[in-house]
Amino acid sequence: MNKIYVVGIGPGAYEKMTIEAAEALKGSDTIIGYTVYVDLVKEHFPGKTFLTTPMKKEVDRCIMAFEEAQKGHVVSMICSGDTGVYGMAGLMYEVGVKYPEVELEIIAGVTAASGGAAVLGAPLIHDFCLISLSDLLTPWEKIESRLLHAAEADFVICLYNPSSKKRSDYLMKACDLMLRHKDPDTVCGTVANIGREGEEMQLMTLKELRDTKVDMFTTVFIGNSQTKNVDGHMVTPRGYRNV
Amino acid sequence: MNKIYVVGIGPGAYEKMTIEAAEALKGSDTIIGYTVYVDLVKEHFPGKTFLTTPMKKEVDRCIMAFEEAQKGHVVSMICSGDTGVYGMAGLMYEVGVKYPEVELEIIAGVTAASGGAAVLGAPLIHDFCLISLSDLLTPWEKIESRLLHAAEADFVICLYNPSSKKRSDYLMKACDLMLRHKDPDTVCGTVANIGREGEEMQLMTLKELRDTKVDMFTTVFIGNSQTKNVDGHMVTPRGYRNV
Repeated sequence: MNKIYVVGIGPGAYEKMTIEAAEALKGSDTIIGYTVYVDLVKEHFPGKTFLTTPMKKEVDRCIMAFEEAQKGHVVSMICSGDTGVYGMAGLMYEVGVKYPEVELEIIAGVTAASGGAAVLGAPLIHDFCLISLSDLLTPWEKIESRLLHAAEADFVICLYNPSSKKRSDYLMKACDLMLRHKDPDTVCGTVANIGREGEEMQLMTLKELRDTKVDMFTTVFIGNSQTKNVDGHMVTPRGYRNV
Repeated sequence: MNKIYVVGIGPGAYEKMTIEAAEALKGSDTIIGYTVYVDLVKEHFPGKTFLTTPMKKEVDRCIMAFEEAQKGHVVSMICSGDTGVYGMAGLMYEVGVKYPEVELEIIAGVTAASGGAAVLGAPLIHDFCLISLSDLLTPWEKIESRLLHAAEADFVICLYNPSSKKRSDYLMKACDLMLRHKDPDTVCGTVANIGREGEEMQLMTLKELRDTKVDMFTTVFIGNSQTKNVDGHMVTPRGYRNV
């Protein structure tokens, strides 16, 4: 049976990949991905065929993977972070309906929420939500409703895609929504370039976050009502009857 | 400086650990954890000192780690999944305030949400919430509010600690709450023993999940309004203007 591994390579650095992910890439003939991610892994897997497609060409990338697999090649389709979290795993199943002879194996990785949390301290110790601020495929009203409900239920919130050139004020809009239910002094953190060159973290309050500019390589963390700044680390306790 | 690595070992199988996690364990003198997790890694790290404490003795386990580090040993404190998601990272920072000479390094791992998603297909491709049904440290009213808000905002929901001997009806209670806002035919999935012997997945509807018994080694996934069953896999599309 023809096989495609759909592999999350983790935040970026080779060592942040799982052993299983590295073995899948080693066992593949062809590694396919968005150019930036292929460049992250290339040097560690010599002798492989690397194929890339630009951003927003995800369906083409999936078709490319299935066609390579049909030629009898073992293929890995790679994503940064976890392929199952805002990644390619879903689209691979959807496109794969037309290629029933190709088997998919999903290999999970460390998503930016986990990778960024490790840099900040321990912000995600209790219930949390992941919300993408990208309205490319989701209506803004839906994103707005999720931000409001998540804030009202006192979740820790982790924001993916907090900004882009076209959406430079989205983080501010999101903070204004969360401020309807969260205290302005809620402990927040940002991590840019998680696990890559130029990794940088910052702690701040929610009202400071509102006026902070971040880029698309930044993941944003908004604490719950119990989240604390412990010696410069963002830490959420396990619950309400804690140490 | 004395050092403790706080390491998420992933869902269970050695290969599901990151390369960085394996290197931290190799570089440690002493590996500390809950008995079950220590047993999962023991054979791969010969020659180490292994120390364990039983469940619910988490504070003692942290103190043990800091005291070992103060003796000059390089210590790894291990958790299953990601140490930053319902794991020990937060408590280590809190207890660590008393041990300022010990440096912590958090090493993220693949949490059960990501590991289980890979088994089911791709349920977490869009915005999702993690909610623990354990009310050991969190009042049930808070959990209830989070379930209701998450369901109303059409999040995919992943439930940790869905059951225990004392809480055998909690999953049913949680489903009844989510059914106030989610369709009874919402696609759901369960994965038991992720990445370990006896791994088992099941797809079902939310109304079937309501009457399903799960154990404490099971992670539960409730889809959003767009989640589909694609040839036996639980798949959430990337958005609303999809393929």
